[in-house]
Amino acid sequence: MTAPNALAPDTLLASLRWRIATKKFDPTKKIPTPLWSALEDSLVLSPSSYGLQPWKFFVVEDKAVRAKLKPVSWGQPQIVDADKLVVFAARKDLSAADVDRYLERISEVRRLPKEVLADYRKMMLASVSQEPARVQAWATRQIYIALGVFLTAAAVLGVDACPMEGIDKDKYDEILGLPAKGWNAVLVATAGYRADDDAYAKLAKVRFPKAELIQKI
Amino acid sequence: MTAPNALAPDTLLASLRWRIATKKFDPTKKIPTPLWSALEDSLVLSPSSYGLQPWKFFVVEDKAVRAKLKPVSWGQPQIVDADKLVVFAARKDLSAADVDRYLERISEVRRLPKEVLADYRKMMLASVSQEPARVQAWATRQIYIALGVFLTAAAVLGVDACPMEGIDKDKYDEILGLPAKGWNAVLVATAGYRADDDAYAKLAKVRFPKAELIQKI
Repeated sequence: MTAPNALAPDTLLASLRWRIATKKFDPTKKIPTPLWSALEDSLVLSPSSYGLQPWKFFVVEDKAVRAKLKPVSWGQPQIVDADKLVVFAARKDLSAADVDRYLERISEVRRLPKEVLADYRKMMLASVSQEPARVQAWATRQIYIALGVFLTAAAVLGVDACPMEGIDKDKYDEILGLPAKGWNAVLVATAGYRADDDAYAKLAKVRFPKAELIQKI
Repeated sequence: MTAPNALAPDTLLASLRWRIATKKFDPTKKIPTPLWSALEDSLVLSPSSYGLQPWKFFVVEDKAVRAKLKPVSWGQPQIVDADKLVVFAARKDLSAADVDRYLERISEVRRLPKEVLADYRKMMLASVSQEPARVQAWATRQIYIALGVFLTAAAVLGVDACPMEGIDKDKYDEILGLPAKGWNAVLVATAGYRADDDAYAKLAKVRFPKAELIQKI
């Protein structure tokens, strides 16, 4: 199957070079619905280990809730100024039940009897049966894949975003009531459009030289 | 600054739906140089916490080395059949020296005296001064952002890829001699073009319904 409408490499790189961790959003600019819907879909379509999707994405639209999240996010203004705020959450106590929920879904989508997935089930059960801290760390790492997908998708769509690890996760859990729903906040991404006077947006992007970051063996 | 040549949302989604964790590569198909170079650049341009880039990407071209890596990757054929194999490695013992190396680079690229970066330095030092296991886990999570960027970049360029967590990292470290260079293997991505007879490529993509994965608050 040939790829649909592949992007030219220079176009991709122009988007990735344009992308910044936006420090100042223009609070008056909204992301058009088709673009936002595609960004949500990019999260849905994100890869994860085994395809297990040990995550949920909470899009916080309630202004009052966002105001409460700001002080527990080091007061960063993006929390209230960006058009969209997504809290990336990892499954709390990822377990055999999650594996089985996923297998049900595979069986449904691919019209397969669950019996043919027995070996796959065994592999996944081994992963979720490790000590809880390891399972938690593993689920948390998957969230970062979705973050990478989301930020790249935003860049190629011409939407600004800002990943934010600097949040008080316990307070996020408390304010959003996540643990009771079976989730734990991991990080945040805000999205919208950069303010014209965002001073950081004018600074040169800093990366180590390619020759230092990529090594052929 | 307006985004350069933004992609249409439907085009992006077509690429993300086309993307699969490729199980069977066509060993005769090579990625054209401009595309591979752009994929390397997507790694260089990947975001990371503080922009610290606690990573290095080893592109293993040596066939003999790839043959050695296959048995320590659950024998997965992608390790030798894919055109490219990238080992994503995290900084071993991330420390104040890495922070200072990064600050040197900021100072160089932005032509700023290091003194103006003192507060930023302090923040980063606090992060790398946590207990070693926490610092290591944090650096490792950053690698997964780069993975998400790489897989999305490959998809929009029409290049197939496969992320692989199922590797014996210690054996990778040993075979590639990474710890002596200051790095630890975290995961692998292979890239190339899917084989025409890759049975997995024909299966429907399985995701939980959007309404289950995305929740508005």
